[in-house]
Amino acid sequence: MEESDIQIHPSLRTIEWKNNHVIMIDQTKLPNELVFVEYYDYNQVADAIRDLVVRGAPAIGVSGAFGLALASLQSKATTKDELILDLEKARKILFETRPTAVNLAWGLEKIMDAASSEDSVEKIKDLVIDTAKKMADDDIEINKTMGKYGSELFDNNDTIMTHCNAGALATVAYGTALGVIRATKESGKNVKVIATETRPVQQGSRLTAFELKHDGFDVSLIPDTAVGYSMANGLVDKVVVGADRIVKTGHVFNKIGTYQVATMAKQHGVPFFVAAPLSTFDMKNNAKDIIIEMRKGSEVTGIGDKKTAPDDVNVINPAFDMTPPELISGIITEKGVAKPPYEESILKLFEVNN
Amino acid sequence: MEESDIQIHPSLRTIEWKNNHVIMIDQTKLPNELVFVEYYDYNQVADAIRDLVVRGAPAIGVSGAFGLALASLQSKATTKDELILDLEKARKILFETRPTAVNLAWGLEKIMDAASSEDSVEKIKDLVIDTAKKMADDDIEINKTMGKYGSELFDNNDTIMTHCNAGALATVAYGTALGVIRATKESGKNVKVIATETRPVQQGSRLTAFELKHDGFDVSLIPDTAVGYSMANGLVDKVVVGADRIVKTGHVFNKIGTYQVATMAKQHGVPFFVAAPLSTFDMKNNAKDIIIEMRKGSEVTGIGDKKTAPDDVNVINPAFDMTPPELISGIITEKGVAKPPYEESILKLFEVNN
Repeated sequence: MEESDIQIHPSLRTIEWKNNHVIMIDQTKLPNELVFVEYYDYNQVADAIRDLVVRGAPAIGVSGAFGLALASLQSKATTKDELILDLEKARKILFETRPTAVNLAWGLEKIMDAASSEDSVEKIKDLVIDTAKKMADDDIEINKTMGKYGSELFDNNDTIMTHCNAGALATVAYGTALGVIRATKESGKNVKVIATETRPVQQGSRLTAFELKHDGFDVSLIPDTAVGYSMANGLVDKVVVGADRIVKTGHVFNKIGTYQVATMAKQHGVPFFVAAPLSTFDMKNNAKDIIIEMRKGSEVTGIGDKKTAPDDVNVINPAFDMTPPELISGIITEKGVAKPPYEESILKLFEVNN
Repeated sequence: MEESDIQIHPSLRTIEWKNNHVIMIDQTKLPNELVFVEYYDYNQVADAIRDLVVRGAPAIGVSGAFGLALASLQSKATTKDELILDLEKARKILFETRPTAVNLAWGLEKIMDAASSEDSVEKIKDLVIDTAKKMADDDIEINKTMGKYGSELFDNNDTIMTHCNAGALATVAYGTALGVIRATKESGKNVKVIATETRPVQQGSRLTAFELKHDGFDVSLIPDTAVGYSMANGLVDKVVVGADRIVKTGHVFNKIGTYQVATMAKQHGVPFFVAAPLSTFDMKNNAKDIIIEMRKGSEVTGIGDKKTAPDDVNVINPAFDMTPPELISGIITEKGVAKPPYEESILKLFEVNN
């Protein structure tokens, strides 16, 4: 891993493929430093996903794809079968980094499908790289389309609350939930944003506040404890968040704390929207079967070197929670906005797709 | 201010009067160090309240009283009128440190009443000091009585969630909400505790987790974002929190985040209790008239030296929120447990008192 001296992108680009390697923003360094890292080995990409150098469901999906692109370049295989075996090995290591977001499995599968469709080692390598690059480009296009659909749900002078970071930094660029906010502003409406801090990893203060200020938005930060206060005091007109996985019944798995933001929104009649591409939908599994990733206690017992809890205290640190469909006013996708009843409206999105 | 080498109290004593000065645990140093500080000047006590060296409504009330006791010793007055003037000046400075908790006004008023009841300077000084010391002793007694009433509401093997720190460290000793948990354990019932971190000042991780581990409790820490997850996954049997001010309609002002804990509890049928002495009740004002203290943004934008948000981001940082009576299963006091409808049951507590 080398730190690159690449200049700041005019609007943030989280992941990029350049000269046969991957360049990412190291999100663990934000908001104090904007550092780009370069990876030449898929194991580095796996580490980056595990250590939250890159995070956000869509960004993880594309990172996984680029990881396989690196694996194809690293492979010394001389036959298709050998190359597929090398890719399978890399796929397994990349897949096991984080279990909850469905996009990672989706991104890896798309690359494996591409790989098996060609016959020669050279052609497979080319197609794997081209497919991964196209996925990155598509991600931006999808976010912009989603943004256009979503922007129609927001009004001039709205103050919009968001949780975690479903922004440029959670995708290749532009963002899902923050993409909707960007598109709303681009459509000529004046908007303000309230970002929750999002403990324990503080994606809200470190990433959302950073990228929105970077792009000139009026953004206010609140501790996660002040969601209820903000709603009760009329400070919030609407909420939009991203998603890590959405099942066919409309149950949304997203960053820990989303469920209580949605509950408080419902309690105060504040519309609560989810913005996510179709690649986030898991049409096979039921809500009760989804594994919630439990992360290490040290994320909660301190911040950096600063210890904020006694030694050896037990910690419960789930990375995600589940928001039931009855709390959700609409799910914004690149194929339109799904509204209740979700079982029907989600299915329809996929029919349009085919 | 000098750091004292006093040995750790077997059970934590937050504030103590000894040889004409005040000794306090410096709570800003917890959980990393248990440091006791000694104050000889009421201005030091005012700073300590403002800077959260001491916090928690009952502890602030007694701290204010001890501040006036120091002011009486500092006074060079030779007549009652001069001494009362000096005390009034100190009262004003102490009162203005924190606006939301009613106990501070209450503690200061009790001392001023005592002062005006004597005639000679010497007798006033003695009575002021004795009254403050008695208030500290009474606080512990009140907490133990409250604990006994409260313990009847909890069952063997309950897991009890608490928010912020309404413990020994929020009072002179024993605690209000944590006093109820202590009394439940002392009554022979097995209990576990889930403590919320309580951003931004982290009284849950720094203080509650610290004092419960210190006393041998089974305590687990969660980020504030995991309240909904914990309730939805059946990890919580009951909730008990303290209060900074309770008005006659049963609206409870307590640490920011309490309102959403109460809402999630209601949503999942988890009983939600408040434990607070009668000195926390404000029978004069209405809920809408209570001023919520707004604290500085730097509490949210970083932790210690660690910056976790971009420079100059706007911050909304209210110290407290309001929980409406319909979310509260009972209010535990030293005169018994008030149940809905609160307007009647709270009034009854005060009738018993007279």
